Amino acid sequence: MITLLTDFGLSDPYAGIMKGVICSVNPATVIIDLTHDIDPQDITHAAYLINAAYRYFPKGTIHVVVVDPGVGSDRSIIALSAGGHFFLAPDNGVLSLILDKANPEKIIKVENKTYFLNTVSDTFHGRDIFAPVAAHLSKGVKIDCLGTEINVRQTVNINLQGPYQSETGDLIGEIIFVDRFGNLITNIDRQSINQLKGSKSDRDLRIWVAKHQINGLSSSYQDVGSQSLLAIVGSMGFVEISVNGASASAYCGLFKGDRVKISTN
Amino acid sequence: MITLLTDFGLSDPYAGIMKGVICSVNPATVIIDLTHDIDPQDITHAAYLINAAYRYFPKGTIHVVVVDPGVGSDRSIIALSAGGHFFLAPDNGVLSLILDKANPEKIIKVENKTYFLNTVSDTFHGRDIFAPVAAHLSKGVKIDCLGTEINVRQTVNINLQGPYQSETGDLIGEIIFVDRFGNLITNIDRQSINQLKGSKSDRDLRIWVAKHQINGLSSSYQDVGSQSLLAIVGSMGFVEISVNGASASAYCGLFKGDRVKISTN
Amino acid sequence: MITLLTDFGLSDPYAGIMKGVICSVNPATVIIDLTHDIDPQDITHAAYLINAAYRYFPKGTIHVVVVDPGVGSDRSIIALSAGGHFFLAPDNGVLSLILDKANPEKIIKVENKTYFLNTVSDTFHGRDIFAPVAAHLSKGVKIDCLGTEINVRQTVNINLQGPYQSETGDLIGEIIFVDRFGNLITNIDRQSINQLKGSKSDRDLRIWVAKHQINGLSSSYQDVGSQSLLAIVGSMGFVEISVNGASASAYCGLFKGDRVKISTN
Repeated sequence: MITLLTDFGLSDPYAGIMKGVICSVNPATVIIDLTHDIDPQDITHAAYLINAAYRYFPKGTIHVVVVDPGVGSDRSIIALSAGGHFFLAPDNGVLSLILDKANPEKIIKVENKTYFLNTVSDTFHGRDIFAPVAAHLSKGVKIDCLGTEINVRQTVNINLQGPYQSETGDLIGEIIFVDRFGNLITNIDRQSINQLKGSKSDRDLRIWVAKHQINGLSSSYQDVGSQSLLAIVGSMGFVEISVNGASASAYCGLFKGDRVKISTN
Repeated sequence: MITLLTDFGLSDPYAGIMKGVICSVNPATVIIDLTHDIDPQDITHAAYLINAAYRYFPKGTIHVVVVDPGVGSDRSIIALSAGGHFFLAPDNGVLSLILDKANPEKIIKVENKTYFLNTVSDTFHGRDIFAPVAAHLSKGVKIDCLGTEINVRQTVNINLQGPYQSETGDLIGEIIFVDRFGNLITNIDRQSINQLKGSKSDRDLRIWVAKHQINGLSSSYQDVGSQSLLAIVGSMGFVEISVNGASASAYCGLFKGDRVKISTN
Repeated sequence: MITLLTDFGLSDPYAGIMKGVICSVNPATVIIDLTHDIDPQDITHAAYLINAAYRYFPKGTIHVVVVDPGVGSDRSIIALSAGGHFFLAPDNGVLSLILDKANPEKIIKVENKTYFLNTVSDTFHGRDIFAPVAAHLSKGVKIDCLGTEINVRQTVNINLQGPYQSETGDLIGEIIFVDRFGNLITNIDRQSINQLKGSKSDRDLRIWVAKHQINGLSSSYQDVGSQSLLAIVGSMGFVEISVNGASASAYCGLFKGDRVKISTN
């Protein structure tokens, strides 16, 4: 099985063409779209999504991430195996969270042209390199065959740091994306929350977004009344700011990059 | 085969993650997207679409509808079999038309956690319950195994009533959605038309939308000149207001919820 | 394998219903979306995309193009085989480039109702004719069985002429579409460039778009500085105007249909 995560959109034929190339090499593979709607060249967003999603796929899945502003430059392409999953992406930081958190067993700099299309353009490696290499992996080619092994320090890391502690001991995070429902997904994970609160409970936390103050973490949208603001550890494992039955983004006037603060009083 | 009808959109990874969970349970299943672009939490629209679409899939297909504003509350989840098809959805009325029209043989309140993911969040049952349960059904698990049988009166029905007759004997309906071409799909079905017209013909009907009057039902877009307004019983079995070669929504200034009247003179 | 290229969008259930019909006839077939986001009834755009994409799919693939403003009129439906690929579309010019360039071995006017749904509407041939016919082809039905053989002069051709030479010897082309990244894809192909430049090199060309002048064709986006304008023969084989790291459409204020000139001095 192969998953695709790109910034190609669905209006242009680029994603479809990648699938054609994959099926030309391995007609038996199953291809799943994670999303093609990453904002053009938004490496950070793609890095968060692949890390949130990959673990829900079966072991052996090949995850292909093509958000590749450096296509045609001398940026490398890397393949890696981690926890039974395979990842293939430009070496531009889009796999930073996988490299940081998934303990990759092996990282390969992809150079073996045997597995590329015969003609490789300088503008569409999704079609000419990523698709055929992924398809060959799905046919059983070992990632060792793709090129030279490198170590994690030889890869590009974009340092997607989590939240930090302010001088007053509060936790300061930011909104990493806004989903279709208007939920504000932050970079504040459960572990950071637990460190902050110590022996206190989720109900003792105070969450500050824009001019709003939220008392306590909820455990479901229904903990508050309709159209009311809440904070919750969401399905991706991060604190999310939501409104029961409406858009928190519209309610708060907040977007990606905006600040969220959590304190214990 | 499993179909998915949700309000998750395609920009967020939620639909892709559901597919990952399904394939983790049953790698051999085929997943078809009906659409993920239901307006957030628009139960009514989803109810119309699943009823219009399911019959074109092979018998044995499992149709999963996740438009679920009550996720995390005490709303139930139901599975049902009807005419050889299976349906899985929150019990919030999204299956009202299936329950009304498809004569379900069996309705089950889904409670058996054996078929859920080990950890169930309160915000993403699509991933944690609907996807794995559908995948288990596709592997041959009987719907009886999912929970307790209930009857149709124990389910939530949102009463998607069709058109009604006015005091003057006219048929009053409304626009239930506007498609990508600007066609105005109404809730007026062929049977209601036949009752209205009695021994008269489709050509004797008069259709009133906004300030426009349309004489007779057409049988194809080409019955009228280019850029002209027409009414037709469309591919879903409902009266549609269309413009040959253009958008009826733009032409008439009409949208979902607006009124359509049909008379016999 | 079956590819779908339509103007149905992904918000309405039309594409999903086509897939249901295909799977009802042949559950074993693989369906790939090329795109469903062709602007409503934009035959020209679809004609360019199917020609750019089909060659990346395995031989034997059945390419279904449904951009069909004449549905329900007396327009024909054609099926053809060319270079090991099969194509099925309304005879409205959407296959013009395939007919012109791919040397079809056989063209059939599709008339045999054996392979249609039992009831054929006048508004949704995608569901009632194209889907079941494609599915039967994927099961091994020969295209000869679909109807009567015709020749290329009996088909509709919309004459998607390439660029032309001005009186002063310059090459005059136009923008055929703008992709998600803002790249301006023109109708100027490599062969026309080669004829224009004669013994000169790509670096000697001058490309004029709006008020901008670009010196030479680049071979990658990185040939110019960040945020700078370039021209390149893109992944579809046509000259594209791009900006390294940004949108050329926004940079130049240009859209589909706008003029591009190339000269040798």
